[in-house]
Amino acid sequence: MTLEEAPSPPLGEFGRITRFFKPLAAGFPGARGLRDDAAVFGVPEGRELVVTTDAMVSGVHFFPDDAPADIAAKLMRSNLSDLAAMGAEPLAYTLVTALPRRLDESWLEGFAAGLGEDQRQFGIALAGGDSVSTTGPITLAVTAFGLVPTGRALPRWGGRPGDRVFVTGSIGDAALGLEIAYGRLDIPDEETRAQLLRRMRRPDPRTTVGPRLIGLASGAMDVSDGLVADLGHLCEESGCAALLRADAVPLSEAARGAIDGDSARLALAITGGDDYELLFAAPPSARDALAALAVDSGVAITEIGELTPGSPGEVTVLDAAGAALPLTRRGWDHF
Amino acid sequence: MTLEEAPSPPLGEFGRITRFFKPLAAGFPGARGLRDDAAVFGVPEGRELVVTTDAMVSGVHFFPDDAPADIAAKLMRSNLSDLAAMGAEPLAYTLVTALPRRLDESWLEGFAAGLGEDQRQFGIALAGGDSVSTTGPITLAVTAFGLVPTGRALPRWGGRPGDRVFVTGSIGDAALGLEIAYGRLDIPDEETRAQLLRRMRRPDPRTTVGPRLIGLASGAMDVSDGLVADLGHLCEESGCAALLRADAVPLSEAARGAIDGDSARLALAITGGDDYELLFAAPPSARDALAALAVDSGVAITEIGELTPGSPGEVTVLDAAGAALPLTRRGWDHF
Repeated sequence: MTLEEAPSPPLGEFGRITRFFKPLAAGFPGARGLRDDAAVFGVPEGRELVVTTDAMVSGVHFFPDDAPADIAAKLMRSNLSDLAAMGAEPLAYTLVTALPRRLDESWLEGFAAGLGEDQRQFGIALAGGDSVSTTGPITLAVTAFGLVPTGRALPRWGGRPGDRVFVTGSIGDAALGLEIAYGRLDIPDEETRAQLLRRMRRPDPRTTVGPRLIGLASGAMDVSDGLVADLGHLCEESGCAALLRADAVPLSEAARGAIDGDSARLALAITGGDDYELLFAAPPSARDALAALAVDSGVAITEIGELTPGSPGEVTVLDAAGAALPLTRRGWDHF
Repeated sequence: MTLEEAPSPPLGEFGRITRFFKPLAAGFPGARGLRDDAAVFGVPEGRELVVTTDAMVSGVHFFPDDAPADIAAKLMRSNLSDLAAMGAEPLAYTLVTALPRRLDESWLEGFAAGLGEDQRQFGIALAGGDSVSTTGPITLAVTAFGLVPTGRALPRWGGRPGDRVFVTGSIGDAALGLEIAYGRLDIPDEETRAQLLRRMRRPDPRTTVGPRLIGLASGAMDVSDGLVADLGHLCEESGCAALLRADAVPLSEAARGAIDGDSARLALAITGGDDYELLFAAPPSARDALAALAVDSGVAITEIGELTPGSPGEVTVLDAAGAALPLTRRGWDHF
């Protein structure tokens, strides 16, 4: 029940669910065809369920005129990245949409199409959710479910002094892409520009790497608030400090082109956030296995520093000459 | 990462989580102290996990000046009611909050206190969530988790012609309470008024009844959109029709006082919604067991009609003389 009657959208709530969401739940028996009050999941013996939630608000986490399929992809992938950081295999998700009453149906069509694409790419399905109306901006939340062997979920807090710090893929593309979107970073090369914007809009969650870090990584998380800030979080939870070698941080060709030796842009790349790469600690003895995993998964895994017995949560960023880099901004606090 | 930097609230996101939400997660090991990227749930052998989500938006689902503890209770209890309708025992929940940046901390304090109260009352704990900021109204979503014996979750669609229709507790208090809140229903008696408003703000989810309906009920759901509309949903999913005897619908003393023989008010009560009572079908042979369950749980269970072989989803409402009551409004469509 809502407080006051208001004009329904042409389809109504049930019509929207039937048209756009039921098809997304068709492949998952636990969704009960979205015909019931709730979803039902069996969890196989020897496995636990990993549950994560990420929400996004129009104008806060994405631009109101972003393509709805891109918005769907970012919402889904930020959640899948959290599952990967726990070592979990993706299983299903639930979706909350709070949408303006007058939203064009074509927006929902594009949004549902984006969800469907990611369902196929990542092997997941819609299990349930809620659709409500709002007088404010579009607000979306996904709760994602994954499976992990019992007792083996990767914690943030398992890092130990002497462990090396690794990161998947490349760092900074999304932060540089956001600067481009704001018109504050002028990149003449069109392909470079497109690549950075693409990585901002459609992160690549490392779902094939995460589950295979179990037994190798001592502590893990994903990079969403910024590499330096998130390494600080991992260290704080692990009760140690870290050295981060800025020149070892993996950059895409596009990011290298955009940074072009500018130290402020490099600082932005390693503090900017939204990378959705995996950041983890592992003992030096894991190096060979990690190298093999990188080859096997096709995802780069790069050693970028080490954990030290210093003050918990303190991250020292060193430049190529080994001098400490003063950073004015360690990352992002969502509020 | 958010699109633009903006002034943080005094505590910041991490401060808010530490102060208000970590204490709510303290009793549930799977929450990992809210220190990790996700929660981890073990599901005992022989059980499945039931997952449901309900969202609420300020100004749409509650009044902006409602007490934050009442808002918390309604959000939690609407979810617990869905678990009960599936026959599930409550286990834990995750929470998404989208809050204005300038929200007073005392609002969050009251909201967290309301969550804490309901955690104690219903034996659940916070497992995880996400806190984001919004430029729009306060938007909240809870995803609730419960356990049910494998394969035994109560479906909406199990009703058969000849089954009787039952409902727990009493119907209409919330709808009448909403009319009072809008100043459209003048109830001189203060206690009656207070009782109806309380039931609108703080529904009583039937968590002790739902799990014990397994083996008794053929099909079940909870009443949120309105008794007549929801019975229509149950019938549609069960492929049958229903007769509903309006004079058999259980009314609280307060609702009887408020209706006072007015047929428009009675129609409002049985179509208005937000009752969060359980509505279910069961064969006549279950009557004795249901009567015993009502005594044992202290929650009334009342027979209000029966399922018939008519057109799927059609609900005929009969008055005390057995004549069909024409209803102008079957219930609520959220959009």
